[in-house]
Amino acid sequence: MKLNIAVLPGDGIGPEVTAQAIKVLKAIAMEFNHVFTFEKALVGACAMDKTGIPLPEETISICDKADAILFGAIGDPKYDNDPLATVRPEQGLLGLRKTFDLYTNIRPVIAYDDLLNKSSLKTKQIKGSNILIYRELASGIYFGDKHFSNNEASDICKYKRSDIERITHLAFKAAQGRKHKLTLVDKANVLASSRLWRTVVNEISKEYPDVTLDCMYVDNAAMELIINPRQFDVILTENMFGDILSEEASVIVGSIGLLASASIGDKHAMFEPIHGAYTKAKNKGIANPIASILSAAMLLDHFGLYDEAALIREGVDKSLKLHITTPDLNTKYDNISTTKVGDFIEDFINNPD
Amino acid sequence: MKLNIAVLPGDGIGPEVTAQAIKVLKAIAMEFNHVFTFEKALVGACAMDKTGIPLPEETISICDKADAILFGAIGDPKYDNDPLATVRPEQGLLGLRKTFDLYTNIRPVIAYDDLLNKSSLKTKQIKGSNILIYRELASGIYFGDKHFSNNEASDICKYKRSDIERITHLAFKAAQGRKHKLTLVDKANVLASSRLWRTVVNEISKEYPDVTLDCMYVDNAAMELIINPRQFDVILTENMFGDILSEEASVIVGSIGLLASASIGDKHAMFEPIHGAYTKAKNKGIANPIASILSAAMLLDHFGLYDEAALIREGVDKSLKLHITTPDLNTKYDNISTTKVGDFIEDFINNPD
Ligand SMILES: [Mg+2]
Ligand SMILES: [Mg+2]
Repeated sequence: MKLNIAVLPGDGIGPEVTAQAIKVLKAIAMEFNHVFTFEKALVGACAMDKTGIPLPEETISICDKADAILFGAIGDPKYDNDPLATVRPEQGLLGLRKTFDLYTNIRPVIAYDDLLNKSSLKTKQIKGSNILIYRELASGIYFGDKHFSNNEASDICKYKRSDIERITHLAFKAAQGRKHKLTLVDKANVLASSRLWRTVVNEISKEYPDVTLDCMYVDNAAMELIINPRQFDVILTENMFGDILSEEASVIVGSIGLLASASIGDKHAMFEPIHGAYTKAKNKGIANPIASILSAAMLLDHFGLYDEAALIREGVDKSLKLHITTPDLNTKYDNISTTKVGDFIEDFINNPD
Repeated sequence: MKLNIAVLPGDGIGPEVTAQAIKVLKAIAMEFNHVFTFEKALVGACAMDKTGIPLPEETISICDKADAILFGAIGDPKYDNDPLATVRPEQGLLGLRKTFDLYTNIRPVIAYDDLLNKSSLKTKQIKGSNILIYRELASGIYFGDKHFSNNEASDICKYKRSDIERITHLAFKAAQGRKHKLTLVDKANVLASSRLWRTVVNEISKEYPDVTLDCMYVDNAAMELIINPRQFDVILTENMFGDILSEEASVIVGSIGLLASASIGDKHAMFEPIHGAYTKAKNKGIANPIASILSAAMLLDHFGLYDEAALIREGVDKSLKLHITTPDLNTKYDNISTTKVGDFIEDFINNPD
């Protein structure tokens, strides 16, 4: 297969982890006789530094022509100190989601057996947890009209029926391939937008009689995720609730350094680790590249390259088992760098036995 | 002291737990020579059943004349099934908060040494955690204009500078009496309303140079609460984020059945357990009354009756130590009812030695 991949390393640790994902994708291409090409572009604080805006036209054009986008991370503390600034690095990410209508964010949350002891949660609590979070990504309060003055500020959370319908079908289909359970998280006892979510999802559920639908309020879900994560299979929720719950759910995995994600639209798809720029760790060789590498695996899945994706995941599992991991996960060795983890998984792909 | 207390038992387990709080307050009045009078009123689903509306005029008038409001719980599943209903039990609670301008919700989150093993979190993770959450309660997306149609729905999150200022001063003052740290939780990288929060709180922080101010995004805070709860002293946040984080924080305590809260305005104050109606447990004698009893202690604190409040808390501590607790907490006895816990703490107040 030929795949033209736009690479947006972004800020902070984005470039160093993305480099490992590319290394792994190149090994896959070699091993399976694919042709993957990579074209880099600027986004976020580094784009602001060079062009003044977080999502330059050239970046949009490169992404538009590509089959998929591999994204690193965005944000720099130097742009955080002024709450009145109107141009912000994060607009680069929001802009990509909006420009390419990437309306579904998918985040797997898996309690790896080799890492159960890394979690803040008791092992008996999380063992066997395997959740797929479907977060609506192109609407809601992040994109509604905003108003800011020194005396008053407001944000609008708006959902159209069609915004809800399209992601809901994807989430039900995902549940059909898993444990046949879908949990809608909303705040329907207070919010009008949540009541529309509940109405639409209830209607659509009739087309998927083999999937059990559960509805849960977001405050309750924030608790249930911790006290009983195994109850969840697929979680479906709106943009902001998904942002909060997916970062919270990272505690089940034991490390945010393992969390990959896909952002899917009808014509474009972007793959990114969820850990963010983590500027403090930049260029120290301690950034965990596994989330970026697992995002590359999700990219391959998206194009039906399931064997290829599975081989990457095997490599990741092996690195965890053998403690070839960065310091955030490693209790045995203290000298395994970002690059070394990438090299190990690359080697594994070249010689899996 | 004379205190006229409006009692709103509400729905579900509200009446049975509130009865224990009243029992305890009566014991305190006897022991300390106070005169506490109690006047009951309807709110929530039980008010809808009898009057058609969740917050009748008579209830408002009783609360208005009272010195304080003791609240049980609200909500009934029979009103949950129709997402299109426009009159809902929860409006009773929102109505009380709005009518009496109860703009600050205060929730203590304490990892009790006797209950560390009850938490889903590892003991080493939570031991010593003691957080006070200040949640803005009278504005934000819960009260903004709403629009609902079958094809589109929206909610507005609006904050005025004055809404933010008044709770911020209370939160800074609370931090001065504790560990001198305040964490503002917002989503200032995306929301205009959050940027106003950050602007105002930063300005006000200059009046409290002995308090360290930290700012944290809500998605990150949802994770940090679990992986490092001891970093927090006072958390200050807007309405919806506070709703989510305070319910999530209950996992630190090990049981939502222990979480009390106060909702404070300039002229009125309401005290309530945060566990909600929990209708499944209604009239089974298994509802944990401690959160309601601790809410009564917060009521006494509010009127400067610190010794009285401390005696209630001693009684609660003793009940935990001796396993005189309802089944949700009890690993030793399986027959301790809601009433029995109330009786034990009442006895303790009458004979503390
Ligand atoms: Mg996030
Ligand atoms: Mg709540």
